Amino acid sequence: MQYSKIPLAQTVVTLCKTHNIKHIIISPGSRNAPLTIGFTHDIFFKCYSIVDERCAAFFALGIAQQTQEPTAVVCTSGSALLNYYPAVSEAYYSRIPLVVISADRPKHLIDVGDGQTIKQKNVYGEHVFYSANLKLDLREDAQKPPEEEVPLFKNLENKFEKLLGLQNGIQSQNETEIHQALHSAVINSGPAHINVPFDEPLYERVDELTISPIPFKLPNTELSIDANEIEECAEIWSNSNKKLILVGVLQPNSIEEKWLHQLAKDNSVIIMTETTSNLHHKDIFPGIDKLIAPLEDEDFNKLQPDVLLTFGGLVVSKKVKRFLRDYKPRYHWHVDEYNANDTFFVLDRHIRLKPNTFFDVFLSGVNISNQSQYKTHWLSIREKRRMLHDDYLQTIPFSDFIVFDKILRSIPSNSQLQVGNSSAIRYTQLFQLKNNITVFCNRGTSGIDGSTSTAIGAALASKERVTFITGDLSFFYDSNALWNNYIPNNFRIIVINNSGGGIFRILPGHKNTENFDMFFETKHNLDASDLSKMYNFEYTSVNDELALTKVLKTFYETSHQPKLLEIFTPSQINDEILLGYFEFIK
Amino acid sequence: MQYSKIPLAQTVVTLCKTHNIKHIIISPGSRNAPLTIGFTHDIFFKCYSIVDERCAAFFALGIAQQTQEPTAVVCTSGSALLNYYPAVSEAYYSRIPLVVISADRPKHLIDVGDGQTIKQKNVYGEHVFYSANLKLDLREDAQKPPEEEVPLFKNLENKFEKLLGLQNGIQSQNETEIHQALHSAVINSGPAHINVPFDEPLYERVDELTISPIPFKLPNTELSIDANEIEECAEIWSNSNKKLILVGVLQPNSIEEKWLHQLAKDNSVIIMTETTSNLHHKDIFPGIDKLIAPLEDEDFNKLQPDVLLTFGGLVVSKKVKRFLRDYKPRYHWHVDEYNANDTFFVLDRHIRLKPNTFFDVFLSGVNISNQSQYKTHWLSIREKRRMLHDDYLQTIPFSDFIVFDKILRSIPSNSQLQVGNSSAIRYTQLFQLKNNITVFCNRGTSGIDGSTSTAIGAALASKERVTFITGDLSFFYDSNALWNNYIPNNFRIIVINNSGGGIFRILPGHKNTENFDMFFETKHNLDASDLSKMYNFEYTSVNDELALTKVLKTFYETSHQPKLLEIFTPSQINDEILLGYFEFIK
Repeated sequence: MQYSKIPLAQTVVTLCKTHNIKHIIISPGSRNAPLTIGFTHDIFFKCYSIVDERCAAFFALGIAQQTQEPTAVVCTSGSALLNYYPAVSEAYYSRIPLVVISADRPKHLIDVGDGQTIKQKNVYGEHVFYSANLKLDLREDAQKPPEEEVPLFKNLENKFEKLLGLQNGIQSQNETEIHQALHSAVINSGPAHINVPFDEPLYERVDELTISPIPFKLPNTELSIDANEIEECAEIWSNSNKKLILVGVLQPNSIEEKWLHQLAKDNSVIIMTETTSNLHHKDIFPGIDKLIAPLEDEDFNKLQPDVLLTFGGLVVSKKVKRFLRDYKPRYHWHVDEYNANDTFFVLDRHIRLKPNTFFDVFLSGVNISNQSQYKTHWLSIREKRRMLHDDYLQTIPFSDFIVFDKILRSIPSNSQLQVGNSSAIRYTQLFQLKNNITVFCNRGTSGIDGSTSTAIGAALASKERVTFITGDLSFFYDSNALWNNYIPNNFRIIVINNSGGGIFRILPGHKNTENFDMFFETKHNLDASDLSKMYNFEYTSVNDELALTKVLKTFYETSHQPKLLEIFTPSQINDEILLGYFEFIK
Repeated sequence: MQYSKIPLAQTVVTLCKTHNIKHIIISPGSRNAPLTIGFTHDIFFKCYSIVDERCAAFFALGIAQQTQEPTAVVCTSGSALLNYYPAVSEAYYSRIPLVVISADRPKHLIDVGDGQTIKQKNVYGEHVFYSANLKLDLREDAQKPPEEEVPLFKNLENKFEKLLGLQNGIQSQNETEIHQALHSAVINSGPAHINVPFDEPLYERVDELTISPIPFKLPNTELSIDANEIEECAEIWSNSNKKLILVGVLQPNSIEEKWLHQLAKDNSVIIMTETTSNLHHKDIFPGIDKLIAPLEDEDFNKLQPDVLLTFGGLVVSKKVKRFLRDYKPRYHWHVDEYNANDTFFVLDRHIRLKPNTFFDVFLSGVNISNQSQYKTHWLSIREKRRMLHDDYLQTIPFSDFIVFDKILRSIPSNSQLQVGNSSAIRYTQLFQLKNNITVFCNRGTSGIDGSTSTAIGAALASKERVTFITGDLSFFYDSNALWNNYIPNNFRIIVINNSGGGIFRILPGHKNTENFDMFFETKHNLDASDLSKMYNFEYTSVNDELALTKVLKTFYETSHQPKLLEIFTPSQINDEILLGYFEFIK
């Protein structure tokens, strides 16, 4: 086995192993050579090489999204780690354990005019759960450059022992910092940053470890149940006629079926889910916008819940947020082991439990109300909308709306769907997917900056085959995602190309002016054919329904290279068809 | 004229005009619509639309690099502004006035689960000279959400007037903040950040301004000359036999010819310049590495200066940094109106003046020493190296080294050269360019993340035609740079494609192992032909000297589209040829 000769590099690599971090995404550089040497020479780690750090971090995010285990990115010093920041912020808000390990210059070489050097310490501010700023050696504590004697010792006796002791102190400080960072990524399920200074020489190796880290005891982080609180909640719940459960982003299979069944029996309970919730039951309400977009005051009053129970991550639907801010529930409880957003400005309880644990204790204490008409009433509206939805499809020409219907129907059973921001996920939510399709989307910051890279990371880490649906701006934004040697052959990309930011046409701007085209819609004539050729994707494009139907017949068949299907849709009518939809289903 | 209805948007746009910010680079979004409306409807501003914020910011950096005037980027809320960060850090260390204007949600919608929302305040930490965190209205000061009455007024009398007064207070606070930020970008010649919260509705417009900003008096920032200090320096200078002037990155024509002439007359003075210094005189020493790389202890002792005078920005040459750290001058003075890096750990004076001002007062007080042999000795070494350099070119096969010789000779007179990091600029420094070619490179952070975008921004803003030379990794990293509607037809890109990070082969790693190829050199088979097609560049590629010579004959001729020339070089021998060079010229 080979190790970097630098003890600090050995320590970082060894402790990553201790914390069971397996996937390491490395971007090229010289300052991080000690880490690269360490990680790539230990077969415990699966290492990947990605040049563009922005893509590397989103790729890692995709892996961590699927494995739910901390995944590390490793880069050189300078602006490299800033390119990780978009993915770091997504990881922060999506609660994905992403570990950034950045190599740095030693402190005395920062801000003295050396190249590839910035102020890396704490650079992610409040968007990480821990920033470990490791120290190279004694000099890190000194103000003077290393060429000067560090003026620590007035008394020269036992100088060597003191130095050694201090150096050991720094080693154990560093170990503690690394443990804290890696542990915080797990307990918060979020990003952490470890900044590691290295001095030259950077490339020297040894055959044996020269460090022996002190064992680290993980603090106890078990969540405790507050029986009184649960009892209070159960009483309020039992006495309320209108209870709304709203579910945000969730990992597949994170809620036990039996709880859903039990809740579905209760006529006073409505469960609204998003496509990204990955929850399925015949009596729940997916497609929230479809249900509530056509509603008027009177309807909203009927829908307004007494109790709102939320769990899961961020909610896509703006309409439901508007509704619940305007028609506030009396109580809002959020069940989540990590945090609770006061999205509707009436949050009165953050129940710090996993939803399954909560339901286990909570549902045993509540009474089912079958007198309420709450659910049955809205189920009838739901049915009406579904019928009108199908009718609408018969009346409209080829457009984004038709395309989403077609492609979402085509997604293979038992596979995974990754969706880009922002139109793509909003359209997707209007349609019903097969229950055995899992759905993911970067909704932490809802950026268009890394969806393709995330999907590729997920495709690599997941056992399921992955289809990625994206708009054109988001696709071209993250075009470097395809500069990646780890894309499975069964990976599929579908680009819906409406020649710009179609979503802006739906917003209340002044459409069809040169100004609008250039600065809002950002019209372009690009297509994905050249990128497909460059990165070895099999490319097909269509611009009508017949051709689309034909291509989809064989699109998911086994292939020797990944495939990209580009669907050109008419930008001039897409927005009217979508707005017409919400009118039609009234 | 049209304005956003939102007073804060009007204020930002109006004050940008007051501060004479002309170039505005806008990335698409909804939250920034009020700013986009304001900037794009006033012909005072030249607005550009760039989708990828990373590229947008480097493009702006290129414009500001050439105009030396603050240039603004405008983006929506969420992770968008994080993509600006690499360019912000480059602007910080390269001292380029880049102004980031980010739209944000109002405070009460941050961290409550709304989409496209992160903690934007102060997000660039210490890498900007000012962070203006504007306030939307009174609610920004309150802790409660807007639905609650802001509990500011116990006494309801005159409530309206008090509210109005406070609102006016916030308006004037915001104005002051904006002035401070924009002024700081100028006086520090660096980046500043203005974060602007907007609430919906975002798209409403009015025909008349509804604000009337208070005039703002710019603080006096004239630099003062400390005559005593100059006198002291002049005395030390006059009494020293070995004076070294080392010049980093400089704008062309920033040092008056007469000072160079006067300094060149003095045999005790050596002026070492980098290609990025844009300084020319027959008796100075460009090509620092060429001069000092082959030196040994004894030579270094001879070269070691008594006084080191530095000015300009960062220095590329690692070898000269190593030399001056190992062979310290007795005095190190840095002349710079902004800051001084203690690069060699012996800085004893930061003379806060523009170099021209300094030389004006300093040189009149110094005596010229013609007894010293310092310069004449090193001029003879310089001549020897130049001859050996030419000889070496005759002995080596087609390689990066040959290619740089050829292409640098080909650059048209009176044009501009933009160079990528990191091999590209290091190679470029070994050759002598025509004096009328100006040279630029992102040496603030020395990143590979935005060189192409910067070059394109510079090409747009500069009156000179621009050629951009880059390595393959840097080129593919910033491939979205080409997604840009403002590229002049006379813009030229030359990609030297050695199939990976050739620079890593020169470093002391373990070459030619699978591990090295993948994680250090990051080998790839990409070429630029598909990207050229996609973005309408005329593409040519060559892989031998004869073909290269032929292509260069017509490469700079007038064309109807920009051109890209890709030169494939043999990665296996490039490193040996470069190392062989430093042996040969000994």
